[in-house]
Amino acid sequence: MATLSGAIDVKQAVGNLRARAQQLFDALRSGSLDHELGGVTRDSYGRGEQFAHDLIAQHAASIGLEVWHDDALNSFMVWAGHDRELPAVVIGSHLDSVAGGGNFDGAAGVVAGLIAVEALKGVGFRPRRDVIVMAVRAEESAWFHVPYVGSRAALGRLPAGALAARRVDTGRTLEDHVRSAGGDPQALRAGKASLTSECVKFFFEVHIEQAPTLAESRCPIGVGTAIPGNFRFPEARVIGEYGHVGLPRRFRNDAALAGAEFALALDRIWAQWDRAGRPMAITIGEFHTNGARHAMTKVPGEFAFSLDVRAYEERDLEELLARVLQVVSEIEIRRGVRFELGRQTNSEAATADAAVMVELEECARRLGIPAMRLASPASHDAATFFAAGIPFAMLFVRNPNGSHHSEEAMDVGDFLLATAVLAEWLVSRA
Amino acid sequence: MATLSGAIDVKQAVGNLRARAQQLFDALRSGSLDHELGGVTRDSYGRGEQFAHDLIAQHAASIGLEVWHDDALNSFMVWAGHDRELPAVVIGSHLDSVAGGGNFDGAAGVVAGLIAVEALKGVGFRPRRDVIVMAVRAEESAWFHVPYVGSRAALGRLPAGALAARRVDTGRTLEDHVRSAGGDPQALRAGKASLTSECVKFFFEVHIEQAPTLAESRCPIGVGTAIPGNFRFPEARVIGEYGHVGLPRRFRNDAALAGAEFALALDRIWAQWDRAGRPMAITIGEFHTNGARHAMTKVPGEFAFSLDVRAYEERDLEELLARVLQVVSEIEIRRGVRFELGRQTNSEAATADAAVMVELEECARRLGIPAMRLASPASHDAATFFAAGIPFAMLFVRNPNGSHHSEEAMDVGDFLLATAVLAEWLVSRA
Repeated sequence: MATLSGAIDVKQAVGNLRARAQQLFDALRSGSLDHELGGVTRDSYGRGEQFAHDLIAQHAASIGLEVWHDDALNSFMVWAGHDRELPAVVIGSHLDSVAGGGNFDGAAGVVAGLIAVEALKGVGFRPRRDVIVMAVRAEESAWFHVPYVGSRAALGRLPAGALAARRVDTGRTLEDHVRSAGGDPQALRAGKASLTSECVKFFFEVHIEQAPTLAESRCPIGVGTAIPGNFRFPEARVIGEYGHVGLPRRFRNDAALAGAEFALALDRIWAQWDRAGRPMAITIGEFHTNGARHAMTKVPGEFAFSLDVRAYEERDLEELLARVLQVVSEIEIRRGVRFELGRQTNSEAATADAAVMVELEECARRLGIPAMRLASPASHDAATFFAAGIPFAMLFVRNPNGSHHSEEAMDVGDFLLATAVLAEWLVSRA
Repeated sequence: MATLSGAIDVKQAVGNLRARAQQLFDALRSGSLDHELGGVTRDSYGRGEQFAHDLIAQHAASIGLEVWHDDALNSFMVWAGHDRELPAVVIGSHLDSVAGGGNFDGAAGVVAGLIAVEALKGVGFRPRRDVIVMAVRAEESAWFHVPYVGSRAALGRLPAGALAARRVDTGRTLEDHVRSAGGDPQALRAGKASLTSECVKFFFEVHIEQAPTLAESRCPIGVGTAIPGNFRFPEARVIGEYGHVGLPRRFRNDAALAGAEFALALDRIWAQWDRAGRPMAITIGEFHTNGARHAMTKVPGEFAFSLDVRAYEERDLEELLARVLQVVSEIEIRRGVRFELGRQTNSEAATADAAVMVELEECARRLGIPAMRLASPASHDAATFFAAGIPFAMLFVRNPNGSHHSEEAMDVGDFLLATAVLAEWLVSRA
């Protein structure tokens, strides 16, 4: 391993492609700018995501990769190995973004795969097994409120009911969106897999960090250890009673105050867990009175919110769900309201391959790149591969500003360090 | 007084017009039904309000009243007295409603005036002074976030800046709405009054109660004692920072949690005042993340809310404003967010005429109608007349379900009792 990688200056080969990487990121950004919200909008199975897939596929073809798409319209860009019978290494991430999101969240993992491949091809390396760069569809559950659409579809694990989910902005179903983008919802419904655990040896995802932990630690890259599982209530509601602005307090069933009490009760639970050093996160991203019915002079009679609770251990998630339900009952009694938590979705937690974590740390050390271990509090397609029995690794790239908004920031130098570690690892393992 | 009213069976004369009252309410309802929200929508300076003014004016003309409109398009329906030089009694309320509101909130006061006049005309009574039934425009500040538009305009007291306020649904200015409805915004800007304290002796407003206090006390009508003043922040905001769903708690500046903390802090203040027997009310009617930018997987970076705080004493309002500002500072520090409270509006508290309250209680007693004194926690046009130096009285009608929503309910029998008391009082005082 030392010999092989010693023979190729992987860091140099990757570093030489700095302009190429910058160019790809710039092209992605300029084609999906959101002039209203700032940042980029690459809507799942919409114009923005399609643009990114077209751009990336075109570039992959230009560097000699075979490109194909499955029924879910995931893009696969294949660098053929010496022995095509061997199970492949898949390097991938998603190309969609939240509305007004950052340019690198997702896309960095796809560009990292392409740059690593181009660099290794450039120095005459050829892998034993196929290396497949995969651009995943519809990872951002903000659009359909369904987690991991593209990767679960690829692995034949998308629940059939998911196709009925409606995109929050268009109101059209996932089925409809997949069909009009040119995919085959019937095949997804049938659970037809385009990847299996037999044909994929390993899944590798490079991703910008979505919190400023690396920046805080002045470390350019992180070796991912785990991806949290979660439970979500995407469309929860509180039903109270609309009332007049002058209604005395004792007559009120204020749905918004009940929502406020719920949010703060959960925030207190999180603060307790934080103090106890138990990792988790709670996000109530949507939190609102009904825009069509609320008014300055009306006591809110209904309230809507989304809830995402995540943790790394199944038993923690169970405990947290029990706490949430307890909080709900208490508030229902105290405020004379009713909670309708609605549809619940769940994702299992996933743990990165322990041996490969060590290999990645060795690769980084050989290349003189500082790296630290890092649990990701975010969700990633890698978790779907793990659930399908395929081991995975993740590398995170420093981002001082957090993600899912236009201020997300990544130094392309940091990105190239992560890509170099990926390439170094491919030399020894692909 | 006893003789005059004894000579006319006012209760009988009003009671005979039950079908007429029902018919007017039914016509108002059926012409302004909101099929989407339920209830009625009579939008200020919009289609629904215009319909109501047309209907009411037509009916007033049919019972022999002179009808005219001022520059703000308030409707005045005049029953000429023996001596037209005497200052008039104005009986009025508003004809607009909140979106999806109740049919009686406002309209009951106008119909009460017309029924009382028709009943008294029917028994051959003629007042000494003019009795003017006034249908007021744009009382519901839910539309323009400006209090008492029509009554303040009539009294030449509408602040010029109010004309720039935009209607929450159309986005068009009040000026634009007044003009396209056929009014004269220039005259309003100039502060031209259509009513003055010299020409109006008294203002009388019948209104459904907007809380279930009368229903709780099994009393059909209430004699109004006071109208609270208020301060409002119609378009307040919290600025935090958008973040990714996985962002650890210590990095978050969650604007929605700050909003939740604000709402609950104010609710606790209200609970304290309630226990101390200090009357007030706090309503946060609009309370929401930004629908264009929020997502299940984004920490909310901004939050919007409206605030209405009301009390009967100026010094209470001052104390409450200080408490609100203190809460804001504490949360800003604790949560790393910034509050932008925005535009503030104020209305002064108003006290009903003490002598007339006694007279109304006597009228009710003579007619055998149970009545109790009642402070209204709601805002009413009567407060504008008080601010202009014109004394006022209010009568409330029982409503078990509260107001500003489609469940508002009024027994027409209760309504006729209030109207009978009004008519009885007119016989002695008009």
